[in-house]
Amino acid sequence: MIGQPDLHTLVAHLGPLVGTWRGAGSGSYPTIESFSYVEEVTFGHVGKPFLAYGQKTRHAETSLPLHAESGYLRPVAANRLEFVLAHPTGILESLTGTVETNSRGLVLDLHSTSVTGTATSVSVTAVVRRFELVADVLSYKVAMAAVGEPLTHHLAGTLHKST
Amino acid sequence: MIGQPDLHTLVAHLGPLVGTWRGAGSGSYPTIESFSYVEEVTFGHVGKPFLAYGQKTRHAETSLPLHAESGYLRPVAANRLEFVLAHPTGILESLTGTVETNSRGLVLDLHSTSVTGTATSVSVTAVVRRFELVADVLSYKVAMAAVGEPLTHHLAGTLHKST
Repeated sequence: MIGQPDLHTLVAHLGPLVGTWRGAGSGSYPTIESFSYVEEVTFGHVGKPFLAYGQKTRHAETSLPLHAESGYLRPVAANRLEFVLAHPTGILESLTGTVETNSRGLVLDLHSTSVTGTATSVSVTAVVRRFELVADVLSYKVAMAAVGEPLTHHLAGTLHKST
Repeated sequence: MIGQPDLHTLVAHLGPLVGTWRGAGSGSYPTIESFSYVEEVTFGHVGKPFLAYGQKTRHAETSLPLHAESGYLRPVAANRLEFVLAHPTGILESLTGTVETNSRGLVLDLHSTSVTGTATSVSVTAVVRRFELVADVLSYKVAMAAVGEPLTHHLAGTLHKST
């Protein structure tokens, strides 16, 4: 095995994301009851021009696993990103958007260019994801259009980097 | 934290896959030079009715990272599976197929129902994946139709479970 390589220059501006983040979030949608969860998000890298993304949530009280998702964040031009994600529910998201860096952190604004799924997955037609890193706090919001509903807020969470 | 839960009954027949597998493989395609790699594949679970899949390859000689992919394997009926996968190249695969279990192991035969990608990803139009577990050896083959070529063998590897 070799040690952890340096960040690729094309993802250097995303360096503050790299690591494991833990915290809590809540979800709502017109078709379901609202819920709360604890969460772990990891952004990893292997020295290539992308970040690996993994997410797991657990029920806030029972600790039973709820959701998971995994994928890759890939810069494609200055301040532009693509994000591809797979879900155990059979959903696949392809998103594109922007990254803004400033002295306090960074903001990723992403919207889906396609959402596909397996034959048994529910219908999701659009997803919007925003990540905001300010100082040491990573917060995010996810909106989606699904099961006939228009684009509607779905998830929000606040995470701190795990040491 | 809670300990490792039992396998969900809907993935019990896939139990022999769960763990970390290491080995080597080789790749070829009409449009590229053939190549060899070392590989690590992980099938994980959290007690829910799916397996998480992660894969990483490195150059056989230099140990530099080559490919990665991640996703989820989800049984949808007796002997039927779906498999969703994201790639750092911007490709997203949705596959469906069968699992056969026998006294020596199991065989997964999967073919894509859709392959999508980001605006900057290469064109892949079909993928066929076969996993075969015989005793303690996991082998796989991947064929794909891409960049204008018909469905053609692309990857083969042989892995052993890491202890």
